[in-house]
Amino acid sequence: MPIYTCTAAQGSLTSEVKALLAAEITRIHVDINHVPPAYVNVVFSELPADSVFAGGQPATPLILTGWVRRGHPQEEATRLALELSSAIVRISGMDESRTMVVLQDGPARSAVEGGRILPEPGEEKEWLRRTGAA
Amino acid sequence: MPIYTCTAAQGSLTSEVKALLAAEITRIHVDINHVPPAYVNVVFSELPADSVFAGGQPATPLILTGWVRRGHPQEEATRLALELSSAIVRISGMDESRTMVVLQDGPARSAVEGGRILPEPGEEKEWLRRTGAA
Amino acid sequence: MPIYTCTAAQGSLTSEVKALLAAEITRIHVDINHVPPAYVNVVFSELPADSVFAGGQPATPLILTGWVRRGHPQEEATRLALELSSAIVRISGMDESRTMVVLQDGPARSAVEGGRILPEPGEEKEWLRRTGAA
Repeated sequence: MPIYTCTAAQGSLTSEVKALLAAEITRIHVDINHVPPAYVNVVFSELPADSVFAGGQPATPLILTGWVRRGHPQEEATRLALELSSAIVRISGMDESRTMVVLQDGPARSAVEGGRILPEPGEEKEWLRRTGAA
Repeated sequence: MPIYTCTAAQGSLTSEVKALLAAEITRIHVDINHVPPAYVNVVFSELPADSVFAGGQPATPLILTGWVRRGHPQEEATRLALELSSAIVRISGMDESRTMVVLQDGPARSAVEGGRILPEPGEEKEWLRRTGAA
Repeated sequence: MPIYTCTAAQGSLTSEVKALLAAEITRIHVDINHVPPAYVNVVFSELPADSVFAGGQPATPLILTGWVRRGHPQEEATRLALELSSAIVRISGMDESRTMVVLQDGPARSAVEGGRILPEPGEEKEWLRRTGAA
């Protein structure tokens, strides 16, 4: 259900680090938001060195943005963002000051996965039961 | 006014399929949200195979995210998401289980196209009349 | 704190123009939203010619999307979008009709930078003081 996009300058992340990040982002999301792992999407967008800036200067940040369904309790979204931040620092080895995590929310009823409108937060079990996935 | 971004692993989509997807996404959006076709933007972001994951494993999903103005009735946003989902399955030939559509909303007054603040949903005709486009 | 993503067809923007755009987007954001320049991220996503469409046809738009913390007064978000629009037209030399700016907002408490939850709009000074950055 969520879509995580990790943006970095080309050369910042090896294939191995990307795989480790994807696995850990998935694990954390499953743990906090209670969806099966298969529903967690993670993609990496790596951009040329002349295409990434901070403070108006060339930079090499690691930016993780995630789309999640609106309606999760704010304290859980905050905890999710903090745990994801710790994970990307730990796994990438980048200085924490260069990392950022942003969770954007949108209405579950404006999203479709596998042909079906997503469930509201808290209604996942019934939704999964009807898909035959739970 | 909307911006659709279609994310897939490299090699999943031919140029022809991308053109067909762009045309159909545009047609559906015009039909449901009543804006002239020229205002519908569609871009494709194709990522290397080692950069796309689902469930923490390499994967080849087709993810369509769209930015739309906040304030459309929810039932129309839901219908739009469902019709877009059907279209991308039909045109790409991908298994439905690998597809996802997410519509994110934002304030029309926080968006500018062609130098002008976007109209609220429902106020398109007057806005277009003043641009000389209608 | 904000993340700006500028999307264009490959070949639309030189490295020099990208650097100028990043500097001016940063300057405008700092001026209106009162955060230190180092916290303004700008990235460029340049896509192949067969991957960018408007009105269902191949096109060469310049689309700037920004993520900002929710809670800024709407009139300031509108002014920010308008000033960014003027800047990208002026610097890129593109026809205004091909340009678009969209500001998406999300909860500050769902975002983490440098390991710390972002401040609500208006609480930046205290937050920066505690980071030692102000």
